[in-house]
Amino acid sequence: MPPPALTDFSRLAIHTMTNKPWTLAQCVDAYTAAGVPGITVWRNVLQDIGPQAAGRILRDSGLTVVSLARGGFFPAFEPSKRQAALDDNRLAIDEAAAIGAPLIVLVCGAVPGMSLFDARQQIRDAIGTLIPHAQATNVKLAIEPLHPMYAADRSAINTMAQARQVCEHLNSPWVGIAVDVYHTWWDGHLEKEIHLAAAANRLLAFHICDWRVNTRDLLNDRGLMGEGCINIREIRAWVQAAGFTGYNEVEIFSTDRWASDQSQYLDQIKDAYLSFA
Amino acid sequence: MPPPALTDFSRLAIHTMTNKPWTLAQCVDAYTAAGVPGITVWRNVLQDIGPQAAGRILRDSGLTVVSLARGGFFPAFEPSKRQAALDDNRLAIDEAAAIGAPLIVLVCGAVPGMSLFDARQQIRDAIGTLIPHAQATNVKLAIEPLHPMYAADRSAINTMAQARQVCEHLNSPWVGIAVDVYHTWWDGHLEKEIHLAAAANRLLAFHICDWRVNTRDLLNDRGLMGEGCINIREIRAWVQAAGFTGYNEVEIFSTDRWASDQSQYLDQIKDAYLSFA
Repeated sequence: MPPPALTDFSRLAIHTMTNKPWTLAQCVDAYTAAGVPGITVWRNVLQDIGPQAAGRILRDSGLTVVSLARGGFFPAFEPSKRQAALDDNRLAIDEAAAIGAPLIVLVCGAVPGMSLFDARQQIRDAIGTLIPHAQATNVKLAIEPLHPMYAADRSAINTMAQARQVCEHLNSPWVGIAVDVYHTWWDGHLEKEIHLAAAANRLLAFHICDWRVNTRDLLNDRGLMGEGCINIREIRAWVQAAGFTGYNEVEIFSTDRWASDQSQYLDQIKDAYLSFA
Repeated sequence: MPPPALTDFSRLAIHTMTNKPWTLAQCVDAYTAAGVPGITVWRNVLQDIGPQAAGRILRDSGLTVVSLARGGFFPAFEPSKRQAALDDNRLAIDEAAAIGAPLIVLVCGAVPGMSLFDARQQIRDAIGTLIPHAQATNVKLAIEPLHPMYAADRSAINTMAQARQVCEHLNSPWVGIAVDVYHTWWDGHLEKEIHLAAAANRLLAFHICDWRVNTRDLLNDRGLMGEGCINIREIRAWVQAAGFTGYNEVEIFSTDRWASDQSQYLDQIKDAYLSFA
């Protein structure tokens, strides 16, 4: 029997990047009016107004800030670049604190020509270095395993098991995992790893979208729930059964959708959420 | 210390699909003239002339036929389609025998909307069903794990470990694994799985190309060795250290390269083989 559908929007959150044409204020107004209770803020929408003003807008709205996206991109051949990445991640952590986000999502990084083994070590070391700052600001670090098609230059952490190994090595309550169905749906160990993460209190975030069967672009051709082949509802049920009580975050990069009317699109997101998530 | 380069072409094979604009006869002539000793034949080049005539061309050439590409595409919702796939795979096995290929490469298949768990079971059952015909014709079945980005509709076998599990379940000397760096380079368990496959006499084929850092197309934008970020030489050394004495097969799907002069391209393939494989 398929798992039951969601019946309300109480756990729906949307990433500002999903509605990339909108400013933070436009996202906040639209989500509030649409009864969407959660928001994940991408750093690009902070650039014009700064994190303090963004924090005021968000607090006034009553929306729950689920997370700040994103930190990471740790590995580099040059030590100075690794240091710059750490500095920028501390800044991202400060921004998260300023807007009331309890965690930042980490896209861990990879460097063409660097072995994935070395990149994974640098990632582990970098996240370890950030833990004291995470603790001091009360902002958790959520490692997001990225699909193996991004191993060239976006992340050397490509499976739930690899993310778990980093977490186990660092063994800190400030380091956990963000699960995105787009990156992990193909993995035969996904259900098991979701339960392992939850059992260790490391299941920090859950992102949804869909995999278009004929994906035209590696980055910006994600599907709205129902437009692809991911067993979203089943995975969402695994996450829920594992004890996760956080938000189901809609994170869709789509050139097509960004070119469409964003208000209509928001209605479509809500429909798709109840129909397919 | 990086592993040593290859110093000759004695283990070089090329897939006819790499030179897609060429007929089988053109491939055979060009590879022979270029001192390329091995060839993997794709079924499309058999269509005009048939497997018997193709077999004569190949035997006369003195080239070693490394494999026939490809069988597979087993799962389907409808039993009649599964049966049709089995029939077509028996035909592919017969074609392999006719051209003197000791194995066929299997792209195992996947169906949008079918769970990957179910697809994997159907794949396992289908390959098991083919074993008697493989044995009768002396043609091995090589499961090629495909990159997870093909899990939607091309293969539900996406890692070396999944291919190994199918092999272990079937436990037949007629079923093994074809390793392609394009599909597996990101996998932290690749070296270990290569050794496990070789130790079980299941390492049947090795394919090389490169992963372009900014991949523009999921299917037909593979790079020539050196154009991307795969640690090809290191993986080739793992395969060799595991005891594999077969060919290093160049398999590149590239819209750009297919539009170029194929004779010049063949020279570039040979250069890249010594420089990067």
